[in-house]
Parts: sequence; structure tokens; C-alpha cells
Amino acid sequence: MKKIHTHHFALLLLLILSTTNRFQTLKNHSLNHYHSIADSIIRSSLVEKKGYRWLKELCEIGPRLSGSNQSLEAIEWAKSKMIVSEFDSVWLQPVMVPKWVRNDIESAHISKSNNYQGKLLSIASLGGSIGTPINGLTGKVVEVKSFDELANIANNVKGKIVFFNRPYDDGLVNTFEAYGKAVNQRTNGAIEAAKYGAIGSIMRSVSSQKDNIPHTGVMYYDSTISKIPHASIGIYDADFLSRAISEEPNLEITLNMNCENLSDVLSYNVIGEIKGTIFPDEVIVIGGHFDSWDKGCGAHDDGAPCIQTMEVIELFKRLNIKLKRTIRCVLFINEENGLRGGIEYGKYAAFSKEKHYAAIEADRGAFTPRGFNATADKEFISEMQSWLPVLNKAHIDWIRPGGSGGDVAQIKNAKAWFGFVPDDQRYMDVHHSDNDTFESVHPREMQLGTAAMAIMVYLLSEE
Amino acid sequence: MKKIHTHHFALLLLLILSTTNRFQTLKNHSLNHYHSIADSIIRSSLVEKKGYRWLKELCEIGPRLSGSNQSLEAIEWAKSKMIVSEFDSVWLQPVMVPKWVRNDIESAHISKSNNYQGKLLSIASLGGSIGTPINGLTGKVVEVKSFDELANIANNVKGKIVFFNRPYDDGLVNTFEAYGKAVNQRTNGAIEAAKYGAIGSIMRSVSSQKDNIPHTGVMYYDSTISKIPHASIGIYDADFLSRAISEEPNLEITLNMNCENLSDVLSYNVIGEIKGTIFPDEVIVIGGHFDSWDKGCGAHDDGAPCIQTMEVIELFKRLNIKLKRTIRCVLFINEENGLRGGIEYGKYAAFSKEKHYAAIEADRGAFTPRGFNATADKEFISEMQSWLPVLNKAHIDWIRPGGSGGDVAQIKNAKAWFGFVPDDQRYMDVHHSDNDTFESVHPREMQLGTAAMAIMVYLLSEE
Repeated sequence: MKKIHTHHFALLLLLILSTTNRFQTLKNHSLNHYHSIADSIIRSSLVEKKGYRWLKELCEIGPRLSGSNQSLEAIEWAKSKMIVSEFDSVWLQPVMVPKWVRNDIESAHISKSNNYQGKLLSIASLGGSIGTPINGLTGKVVEVKSFDELANIANNVKGKIVFFNRPYDDGLVNTFEAYGKAVNQRTNGAIEAAKYGAIGSIMRSVSSQKDNIPHTGVMYYDSTISKIPHASIGIYDADFLSRAISEEPNLEITLNMNCENLSDVLSYNVIGEIKGTIFPDEVIVIGGHFDSWDKGCGAHDDGAPCIQTMEVIELFKRLNIKLKRTIRCVLFINEENGLRGGIEYGKYAAFSKEKHYAAIEADRGAFTPRGFNATADKEFISEMQSWLPVLNKAHIDWIRPGGSGGDVAQIKNAKAWFGFVPDDQRYMDVHHSDNDTFESVHPREMQLGTAAMAIMVYLLSEE
Repeated sequence: MKKIHTHHFALLLLLILSTTNRFQTLKNHSLNHYHSIADSIIRSSLVEKKGYRWLKELCEIGPRLSGSNQSLEAIEWAKSKMIVSEFDSVWLQPVMVPKWVRNDIESAHISKSNNYQGKLLSIASLGGSIGTPINGLTGKVVEVKSFDELANIANNVKGKIVFFNRPYDDGLVNTFEAYGKAVNQRTNGAIEAAKYGAIGSIMRSVSSQKDNIPHTGVMYYDSTISKIPHASIGIYDADFLSRAISEEPNLEITLNMNCENLSDVLSYNVIGEIKGTIFPDEVIVIGGHFDSWDKGCGAHDDGAPCIQTMEVIELFKRLNIKLKRTIRCVLFINEENGLRGGIEYGKYAAFSKEKHYAAIEADRGAFTPRGFNATADKEFISEMQSWLPVLNKAHIDWIRPGGSGGDVAQIKNAKAWFGFVPDDQRYMDVHHSDNDTFESVHPREMQLGTAAMAIMVYLLSEE
């Protein structure tokens, strides 16, 4: 008995000591180890700038609107980059996507005026809009700032072109909030205008940049209300038109647009992964949307962020860093005008035997890193926040509860969802416009973001 | 006794209650009040963009090297802006400053080579350098990466031009750290080269930008060692020259520079303030250095930050916000090549009857705000950190102990020193070069920084 007792006591002591020791070792080991992993990732990302060079190649293909030839070329390009980078598996997930085409005519001019006859206006057809009749659409212009204001002048809209001119609020710090407060003019303007008999509608570009470049984006119709053409107008021309119609209320403009909606076509999500060494069936998804609007080259939205998530995996390969969980890059197609890629991957995730441990979305541009939004239980978020001293090396200053991204949110059975949050001050200058070019991306800002996401993925894999 | 006891007890209770209440009220009142003040400041700064428009005017004057006519014109401009903005007091503090002039000749070419004869090299004379003889300075080139390497080849330096070619380390996140690790080639290169008998020296520009623009900056001589001309070279040409001399070790280059050091001249710190309503003798200094290098227009370094600190006061006037303490904007002259303005103001502060409560320096560009460095006792820093929820509205994510700025550090008797820290990723692209133009400053990033400093000043005034 005595012997057994001693034996038990010794065992217990050993257990306590070993647990304490393991914990202690893990914590001590971890900190140095993780700091050193973070340092390697950051240095390699900033020095090699592989993602930035990939972005140049991607931008040379052109913009990547769902269903376009360029989007298919870009999909092949991404797949081949993943293969060349020796990802463990690379595949395409088929997705049927809507196909809207801008075509070659989008113009507007003042067609009846004492003072401004013939003046051109800088416009862009909005994604999903029907075209005008072949000889254009001509009408008087009625300006409003809101749908309420439009309802108040309902009797004065019939046969006219509604001009939604509520400005982007530059007084808000959060540029996504400012965008959100202006964008219903684009998404729902044609529906609201047509309700009262308008023949067409235009809307002030949602932009923080002082220039005359029109910004495009998705717009909707309501199946119960007649479809009318809907376009955005550059903000200088919006200001001009507002003045002109206050001087000459009977002024008329003519819109010419030959954009059209075609049948759905086949496209793909691009998927590539490296297998986890300990938990290969636990997947961390990282990705963005690979489609873009057909202005500029979709560099910030969302080409560079997609490439950042591709380079995260390439960085682990490059540095020979092994991860416990499987890391999967998913480039979702069709976020801009359908979310079909996200939904399709979500369906796959729902029925897959794999466990989706976490998913990180990058869809806020490739500016200098600031933080991560997180949707997960409180303990998971606290645990990740305890890693901020490591993440901080790549300028990640916070992890905040709430939000992630539209595509990864379709993975309903994940344990945690994250959204990478770079600085937002310059994003709405370029968003959905000809300004969104390779040149608007800063190499260090982009590469530091790549490093931030790689460190986050590494820590998630170790958790 | 009983009565007295009850009375005492009641008094004590009252005291406890009133203290608790006051504290509670202050805290409750404060939070709403301060959030609302912060919101007004941010909105006004972002919407009005007065500082950004001021920056355009300042940049049109040109760069502001100490002692130059343009620097004096800019000083008059700043003074008149403060007067027009109805600061309570505006004055100039005289400061004698060094005067170095670049003059009209700075060029280099390959003057003896089989393959590269006559090729021009992009150089900039460094601030403080002597010129070359009128017919130029010609010599073979010896390349080193460090002063140690130079010492090792001491016997091979005499009569030659030393080429310091240690690159800026793009693998470091902190661009100021990378700058610090490369800049001794500029500051001390001529001294080290002359020690071993070199006739001239050139150094690889300290730059994170991939272009061929030379970056200037201050360099020193040692009175015991002979003075030789010292210039920076664009990084493309640095790479070219390195290759060329490895192919042709006997290749020669010729430098032509007619820069010179003149006698000290009179200049000024520009000072403007609004008086505190409760503690007018307690001063919060806010400022930057108003001189710049003579390349570009010194927009980020340090024109925009100076203007941010001017606009902080103008914002309080514009919004009719009263401050308990006196807020004084000091635009220090001659930080770049002498620190004379900071030292002169420090002397004034040492003997003034006023109490310098705190001082904030802005000298890291006008990029998106990130935090403040703070030098103060622990309690003061903790107290300021407790205000982060308010500061965070203007994207201030942290206040970290350590550092402030070279000019405000001359105010030896302050209670606390702060340095405004915007994001640093793009700073070394433009620093001390022709890239540092008005166009390199983003209006929202600049104006959000102004708001961040204004909120910080307001909170400091209330503490």
C-alpha cells in the first residue's frame, strides 16, 4: 500500500510537473518561435515582392468581369501560378455566372440647352443595366438626393431621367460606411425611378477622389417594375449638371448605352492548398474574389488581395514552414454581381467531410495593414487577441469582433471567420473605376499585408 | 459628542457621495462630450481640407532650405496664415541659421571607360558638402558597403573616389529603422573616406523607391580631417556603377559640384497661439520643422505636418472650441542641418515663466494616422492611453512609451513629449528628394492626421 501510494504520488507529481513544464515550454518556446517565424515571413515578403510582381502580370491580362474572356484567362493564370509554386493540390470548381457586357457604347451629352448644347458628360453603364434604344434615350432631368425626395416629387418624374445626386460623405472616417450611405442610389436607383415612370436614371459616382472618372458597380431591377437604363456620372459632371438644370430646368440629356445581359456562362473558383501535417482534414480557407469590374484592372478590388492570399501559401513553401492544418486558397468568382462563387464553395463546404476550422477574406484593398475583423465565439477571439504582440510586427494593431467578408460567410460551418482590414483612406478613390490600376498599389503596403495574413494563418494553424 | 459624531459622519458621507458623484459625472459627461468633440473635429477636418489647401500654397513657394529666400517667404506666409486665422498671438523668434547652397552645378559622368564613356550618373550634392574644383574631380572608384570594409582596404583608397553602396534594407518593417541603418554613409561618409586619402565620395541614396532620383540630406565634416566633396547617387545608377567597376576596375568618374557653405544668416521660428481659458500659463506646444531640403517641395518632410499643427489651432477657432491650456504652434527652423530653431526655442522655454505642460512633434510625414510615441512618467502615459477609445475615432490605435521628436526634445522642462506617428511605409520613397511633392500627399490621410493631433491636444488640455 505504501509503495502504491508513493508510486501514485510520484505519478501525480510527474503529471503536474510535466503539464506545467509542457505549458511553460510551449509558452516560452512559442513566443520566441512565433516571433522568429513572423520575422522570416515579413522579411521574405517585403524583399522578394513576389505577389507584387504577380499583380503586374495579372493586371496585364486586364479586368476580370464574371464571364469575360479575360476572367477565364486570369483563372488559368492563377491556376498555373499555384501549380508552378508546387501547391499540394490545385483545382477549379465550376460555377455558372451571370454575364453582363458593357459593349462599346456608353456616352451622354446635353441634347437640348441654350448654353450647354452638345456638352459631353462622363458616364459609365452600371453592371446589370439594360442599354438604351439604338438612337439613345432623351429626356428632361429631375435631380433628387434621396428616395424620399423622389417620392415627394412622384408626379414630376414621368417620362424624365432621374438624377440621383447625393454625395459621398467625405466627413466620415470609415470610407466603407460613407460608401454604404451613398450606394443605394446605384443599387436601387433604377427601380425607384421606374416606379414613378422615369425612362432612365443616372447617379453621382460613389467616390472619394476629386476627379471626373465614373465609378461603376452592380445595380438591380425588380421583376415587377419596368427596366430602365441606369448609369453613373463623374462627380465633376454631376456638379455641372446640377448647376445646369437649375439654370435651365427644361434642359435635356441623351444617354447612349449598348450594354446587355447575356445568358449565364461557365466559370470557376480557383482553389489551391497545402496539406496540414497534423490535422490535414482541418481546413483554413484564405481568399478573395477573383472577378472585378471592367474598369481599370481591379488591382485593389480584388486582384491584389487575391494574390496576397495566394502568396501566403507560396511563402510557406518558399520558407519551408510546415503547418499543422491544411491551408486552402480560394479565389471566388462573381462576388461583384452575384456571389455565385462564394455560394458554390459554401455548398461544397456544407457537404464536405473536412472541418472548416477558419476562413479569412481579403476584400478591402491592398493598403497598409491595420487589423482583422473576427466572427467567432468570445474565447476564440480572445485567444487570437493574445497573439497581437506577434501580429503587431506586421502592423496589425487589433482584432475586433464583428464582420469578415461576403464570400467566406457562405462557409456556414466554420469555427471562425476573419476579414483582413488594411487602411481604408484611399480605397474609394479607386474602387470600381479606371483608377484601380497596378500603379495605385504600393509594393510595401501590399507585401506587408501578405505577411500579416501569413502570420495570422500560421497562428490559426497552431491554435 | 454624539451630535458632532453624526455631523462628522454625515459630512464624510456627503464627501464620499459628492466625490463619487463628481467622478461619475465627469466620466459620463466626459465620454459623451469628448466623443462629440472628436466627431466635430474629424468631420470639419475631412470636409474642409483647409490644411491640404494651405499645403498647395506652401508647395507653390518651393522648398524651404534654411537661409534660402524661399524659406523666408514661407515664414512670412505661415505668419500671415496664423494672423488671418485670428490666432491670439503670432510672432517670429529670430534664429541664426547655417546657409548651404546647392547652386547650379551637380553632375557626374563616366570619364574613362572602354564601354561606358560619357555616361551620365544621377547625383545630388549632400547638404554641407564643399564643391569640386571648377574643372571637376576625377578619380577611380572604390566600392564598399561599410566603414569596416573601408578600413580593411585603407591602402587602396588614396586619390580615389569612395563609393558607399550599402543598400537600404527593404526587409525591415520600420522604414525609419532601415533609414537609420543606411544613413551613416551619408552623414559620415566623407569623413571616413578622407581619413584614408580619398579625394571625394558618393553614396547610394537612402530610398525605398525603385527609381533613379537621388535623395539628399545632411553630411558632416571633422575639423581634423580634410574636407572632400560628398554626393548621393540614384539607386539605379548605384547598381549600374557597381557592375561597371567590377567589369572595369580602372574606370574613372568625374564629379562636378559648385555647392558651398556661406555665413550664417538670420531666420525665424514661426510661433502662434491661442490662450488657455483656465490655465493660460500652461502651454501645450505643437509643431514641426518648417525648413526642408531643397529637392521637391518638402511636402511630407515637413511641410504638411507643420501645416497640420497650424490647422489644429485653426480648427479650434473654426469650431469655437475653448481650451483650458494655451495651445502654441511652433514651426521650428533648421532641423535638417543644425537644429538651431529647436535649440533656440528650448532656451526660451528654459527661462520663460510659463509652464510647458506638453509638446507634440509632427515630423514623420502626413500619412494615415497610427499612434503617438510618448515620453512622460508612467502615470501620465497610462492616463493618456485611457483616452484611446476617443483617439481611435481618428485611427490612433496606440500610445507607446519612448520617443517624441528632435525639436520638442529641446524643451527640457516639459511634463510630457509626444511624437505623432503616421504610417511609415511610403515615407522613404519621397524623403529628401524630388519625389516629395504636393501630389505625394493624400488629402484624407493628411486631414485625418490633423484631426488626430487636434483631439490629442484637446484631451491634453483637459487632463
